[in-house]
Amino acid sequence: MPLGEFDLIQQFFTRDQDQPGLVVGIGDDAAVVKIPPDRRLVVTADTLVAGVHFPEQASPEDIGYKSLAVNLSDLGAMGAIPRWYTLSLTLPVANEAWLSAFSTGLQLLETEEAVVLIGGDTTRGPLSISIQAMGLVRPGAAVLRSGANAGDDIYVTGTLGDAALGLQSVVGEVSESLLPGSALAGCIDRLNRPQPRTIAGYSLAPFVTAMIDCSDGFTADLGHILRASGCGAEVMLESLPLSSAVRCWVESQGWQLPLSGGDDYELIFTADSAQREVINGIAENLHCAITPVGKVVPGAGLKLIKRDGVVVESDPRGYTHF
Amino acid sequence: MPLGEFDLIQQFFTRDQDQPGLVVGIGDDAAVVKIPPDRRLVVTADTLVAGVHFPEQASPEDIGYKSLAVNLSDLGAMGAIPRWYTLSLTLPVANEAWLSAFSTGLQLLETEEAVVLIGGDTTRGPLSISIQAMGLVRPGAAVLRSGANAGDDIYVTGTLGDAALGLQSVVGEVSESLLPGSALAGCIDRLNRPQPRTIAGYSLAPFVTAMIDCSDGFTADLGHILRASGCGAEVMLESLPLSSAVRCWVESQGWQLPLSGGDDYELIFTADSAQREVINGIAENLHCAITPVGKVVPGAGLKLIKRDGVVVESDPRGYTHF
Repeated sequence: MPLGEFDLIQQFFTRDQDQPGLVVGIGDDAAVVKIPPDRRLVVTADTLVAGVHFPEQASPEDIGYKSLAVNLSDLGAMGAIPRWYTLSLTLPVANEAWLSAFSTGLQLLETEEAVVLIGGDTTRGPLSISIQAMGLVRPGAAVLRSGANAGDDIYVTGTLGDAALGLQSVVGEVSESLLPGSALAGCIDRLNRPQPRTIAGYSLAPFVTAMIDCSDGFTADLGHILRASGCGAEVMLESLPLSSAVRCWVESQGWQLPLSGGDDYELIFTADSAQREVINGIAENLHCAITPVGKVVPGAGLKLIKRDGVVVESDPRGYTHF
Repeated sequence: MPLGEFDLIQQFFTRDQDQPGLVVGIGDDAAVVKIPPDRRLVVTADTLVAGVHFPEQASPEDIGYKSLAVNLSDLGAMGAIPRWYTLSLTLPVANEAWLSAFSTGLQLLETEEAVVLIGGDTTRGPLSISIQAMGLVRPGAAVLRSGANAGDDIYVTGTLGDAALGLQSVVGEVSESLLPGSALAGCIDRLNRPQPRTIAGYSLAPFVTAMIDCSDGFTADLGHILRASGCGAEVMLESLPLSSAVRCWVESQGWQLPLSGGDDYELIFTADSAQREVINGIAENLHCAITPVGKVVPGAGLKLIKRDGVVVESDPRGYTHF
């Protein structure tokens, strides 16, 4: 007998609903939450579609984890603390093993980030996962894309291009002679299990002028900040933080991959140069690499500058969804 | 040149973001809203998939309207006032005519209900629309499914079965000899443009004990109230409110369609008999038919009773998503 929607939610998506601030959880027409009067609600929504955002053969546990991670990453980029999410799951068939592993992937990140699934629905159709995540910030503390000023430093957390290299590897575009499988395993993990930089996001929020998460690629996402802020930027190409695997790739294949590869979910942000010590302190505290990569400048456009002073034109397109 | 995601959002989904309570609207990593301290946030999410929730040939304007309507209906069933929503739109191709009409359908209902699109994303893939809607209630005022008591009256707004008859008609299952096309037009409209009972929902909320919106069918949705409340019910079959088209169908085809047909988005609710006059007054005020159809009784199960006293067994299954 096939699982009905209600059995399915009961079996795989019921969570402990005894949570601070959660008045009504899963099981009614809608959930009810209490927002503290000294907080603002931050809301984001992202859909992942099979064959577009993850390979058809991706494990259901990875799919669950990543679906939630990309949404929490958006909250992190606002400086918000994630609290709740809803899940709209569209599935061709209700396969119990798949659902169990998918739910496990979600729960792993729920635990890591202390977020609670409070509602949603399940539907029959081609596999796709829509998540809407909610978090809290203090009034006036949300970090927008539009606050960068000429003279600000530009920073990136972690390393760039790993997820894109992982994807190249998964689709068979990386030869063993270029990079051994062991070097690529970490990149595939970055692709499948992105770590949302939520703690870094809300730790940095009071000290930065603009912030975005790197989902479409470095030049595209920095471009969003620059357009929203009405500024340009100069980035020192060799200062971009790269893992050893991506560095090896760049040596033979050039810079395209770390510049325009998406799915890294690192934070790109700008800050007044007076904040350098604070930012270094946060990096040390969180054991999170935070690398200065350039400066915001007056005008428009993004200049990528090589060590020898040669200006490389950037590709402003990044990842296009259509 | 194909439309990119950003052009597409800019062209079709940008709304006036100068709205009370909206701190940051579309265009950043997430939206930010201010929740009044004397209100609770009510959150619901529902996905519509082509070929499952609307016919493949449905007009994009209808698809837009219905996608938002089914979500607002859930808020209405909680007694909440709708305020904001996010849209995750998955599309095979970015067709401008389609997008424009889809957006028009959304905007019609946005205006009628004073709700604002504050975020979301667009993705390439099989057509599906995930909406997450948010509304507000006073603390303690959300109406749950679990509050019905033995002795309560059971009510239904509007009429039942019209959307299901509209679907029968659309798929060619209604012969002209049974019902003329003109009689079916209203039913097809109910299917394609359901009117969420939001004003009725929050007007009734202080006076009712349990409420749900009728999306899966009358017996299934009343069944949710009964199970959540630990009660049974006796419903007088002939008292169920039917349009003339559905009444005509029932005379030759029996009661299955208004009992288990989904997609009506009427409210089913229970109230103490002391509230009868208030409820009649609300019905008159809102020009909304509100019909008593039976009583909540101790025990479990739903008895459907014919005029002659014969008890008809109900089909408790309703619409199953899998």
